[in-house]
Amino acid sequence: MKLNIGVLPGDGIGPEVTAQAVKVLKAIAMEFDHVFTFDKALVGGVAIEKTGTALPDETIAICKKADAVLFGAIGNTKYDDDPDATVRPEQGLLGIRKELGLHTNIRPVIAYEDLLNKSSLKVKAIRDTNLVIYRELTGGIYFGKRHLSEDGNTASDVCEYQRFEIERIAHAAFKAAQSRKRKLTLVDKANVLESSRLWRRVVKDISKQYSDVKLDYTYIDNAAMDLIINPRQFDVILTENMFGDILSEEASVIVGSIGLLASASIGDKHVMFEPIHGAYTKAANKGIANPIASILSAAMLLDHFGLDEEANRVREGVDKSLKLHITTPDLNNKYDHISTTKVGDFIEDFIHNPDETNLN
Amino acid sequence: MKLNIGVLPGDGIGPEVTAQAVKVLKAIAMEFDHVFTFDKALVGGVAIEKTGTALPDETIAICKKADAVLFGAIGNTKYDDDPDATVRPEQGLLGIRKELGLHTNIRPVIAYEDLLNKSSLKVKAIRDTNLVIYRELTGGIYFGKRHLSEDGNTASDVCEYQRFEIERIAHAAFKAAQSRKRKLTLVDKANVLESSRLWRRVVKDISKQYSDVKLDYTYIDNAAMDLIINPRQFDVILTENMFGDILSEEASVIVGSIGLLASASIGDKHVMFEPIHGAYTKAANKGIANPIASILSAAMLLDHFGLDEEANRVREGVDKSLKLHITTPDLNNKYDHISTTKVGDFIEDFIHNPDETNLN
Ligand SMILES: CC(C)[C@H](C(=O)O)[C@@H](O)C(=O)O
Ligand SMILES: CC(C)[C@H](C(=O)O)[C@@H](O)C(=O)O
Repeated sequence: MKLNIGVLPGDGIGPEVTAQAVKVLKAIAMEFDHVFTFDKALVGGVAIEKTGTALPDETIAICKKADAVLFGAIGNTKYDDDPDATVRPEQGLLGIRKELGLHTNIRPVIAYEDLLNKSSLKVKAIRDTNLVIYRELTGGIYFGKRHLSEDGNTASDVCEYQRFEIERIAHAAFKAAQSRKRKLTLVDKANVLESSRLWRRVVKDISKQYSDVKLDYTYIDNAAMDLIINPRQFDVILTENMFGDILSEEASVIVGSIGLLASASIGDKHVMFEPIHGAYTKAANKGIANPIASILSAAMLLDHFGLDEEANRVREGVDKSLKLHITTPDLNNKYDHISTTKVGDFIEDFIHNPDETNLN
Repeated sequence: MKLNIGVLPGDGIGPEVTAQAVKVLKAIAMEFDHVFTFDKALVGGVAIEKTGTALPDETIAICKKADAVLFGAIGNTKYDDDPDATVRPEQGLLGIRKELGLHTNIRPVIAYEDLLNKSSLKVKAIRDTNLVIYRELTGGIYFGKRHLSEDGNTASDVCEYQRFEIERIAHAAFKAAQSRKRKLTLVDKANVLESSRLWRRVVKDISKQYSDVKLDYTYIDNAAMDLIINPRQFDVILTENMFGDILSEEASVIVGSIGLLASASIGDKHVMFEPIHGAYTKAANKGIANPIASILSAAMLLDHFGLDEEANRVREGVDKSLKLHITTPDLNNKYDHISTTKVGDFIEDFIHNPDETNLN
């Protein structure tokens, strides 16, 4: 298969982890006779430094002509601490999601048996967790009208949803549930928000087309509690943009490190794959960033193109690295100095020699 | 001291747990020679059944003339499952918060040594947690304009904040931090929301008046993760309405049961005390509801009027009940049948005879 992949490393640890994912994809291409080409582009804080904008036109063009985009991370404490900044790294990420129409963000949360003891949650609470969050990604309060009054004393953001925005992700989530445990939980705040009530209405309607899937509803405050009391109760969680942001980062605790969570962002014409973690500026250029989330995002990319065997090979490599403690410091207390690159190298080796790779 | 207390039991388990809190307050009045009078009023689903509205005028009047209000819980699955209901129990709670101007909601989160093993979190992760959430309660997306288009296809909610709304709770939160561990964490989503950037600006400004308090900022998605990875890092968490709702319910996992979390809602003229749990309709009238959150809310009421010894007596009673496993099923695996009323009776007895009370 021929694939042209847009690569947007972004800020902080983005470039380091993305480099490992690219390395892994190259190994897959070589082993399985595919032709993957990579086009790098600027986004986020680095794009601001070089071009004055977080999402240069050239980046958009590269992404639009690519078959898929691999995204690193964006963000920089410099802007975080300055509420008056008008140009912000996040505009790069939100902008590309919007430009590519990536409405459906899929965030799997799987408790690895080898990592159960890394979590602040009890092993018995998290063992066998296997859920997936369907987060709406191009609507809601992330993209509603914002306003700051002239005198700077009043600020507002609008959370708006339209029926079709809910329908398209709901269908995707119900379909996912059909091939999983046939349970879908809609998370909203329908006891307060009009937009949540629209979600409830639309999802209830659509559920009639998926009578083999059990639908239930829960409020976001409840969900934030239930997710860590008993994550096994969930199969597919469907929710709007902001609630999905919050729940998925919270869910990283189940898995043991936010450095493990991958995601796929699907649109009608374009697809992008991104770790759910941020730029983590403090950790940049120290070789300590966990590349697994980025590598698993690459695996989701392979899934998307039906390259099942290839995706599985990557996942087996990840599993093996975890089993052998070939992991960065966020997960490791066995060896001291396994760097970002070493983890990538190990998984690359595994791809080439799945039966031989061991710690060396 | 003479106090007139408005009592709004509400729905589901509200009446049962509130009855225990009232019992405890009566015992305190008797023991410490106070005159507490209680005026009951309707709110929520029960108010809708009887009067057609979730917040009858009479209820507002009773609350406005009271020195303090004790609130139970509202909510009913009947309305939850019906996004088209125009009258909803929640209007009672949101309405009374607004009518009384209860802008500052204080939610302490304390890990009880005797309950550490009840949590789905590891003991070492939660031991010694002692934080408090200052949740803004009368602004934000809870009270912004809502809209549903004529054709029912577009719905929106506005999250708006004004400078003075942020200032008043920020001052309260900084003052609280001064008498605690001198650390304040503002939780927002300033990388996306204009309203969050206003929060950041205003809180930064105000922090200059509290140079002995260390201020830091974190995004809500991060906070939802950090809160359960290492809750001890927090002292005072300051946040807007919706984020406070989510974080505080999530935080209940630290404490072992949502049936333990109390709150105080403070306005310029009025005060109200309420458990953070909801109506939990399924558990109503079975004698299994945990009354501790309501009883601890009564303790916060006593605090508010400077009745320190009295509040401490209540808390000691609660501590003792926990230590002796005189607790409802959510916390108990030692005895089988400790009912809501029995827990209240035990704490009542303790108030009268703090040195003698034991299991009988
Ligand atoms: C960086 C930020 C804008 C982004 C979001 O909130 O969507 C991130 O937290 C994520 O989850 O991808
Ligand atoms: C019942 C609901 C409207 C309420 C809220 O969201 O404020 C509750 O969850 C709470 O936290 O007091």
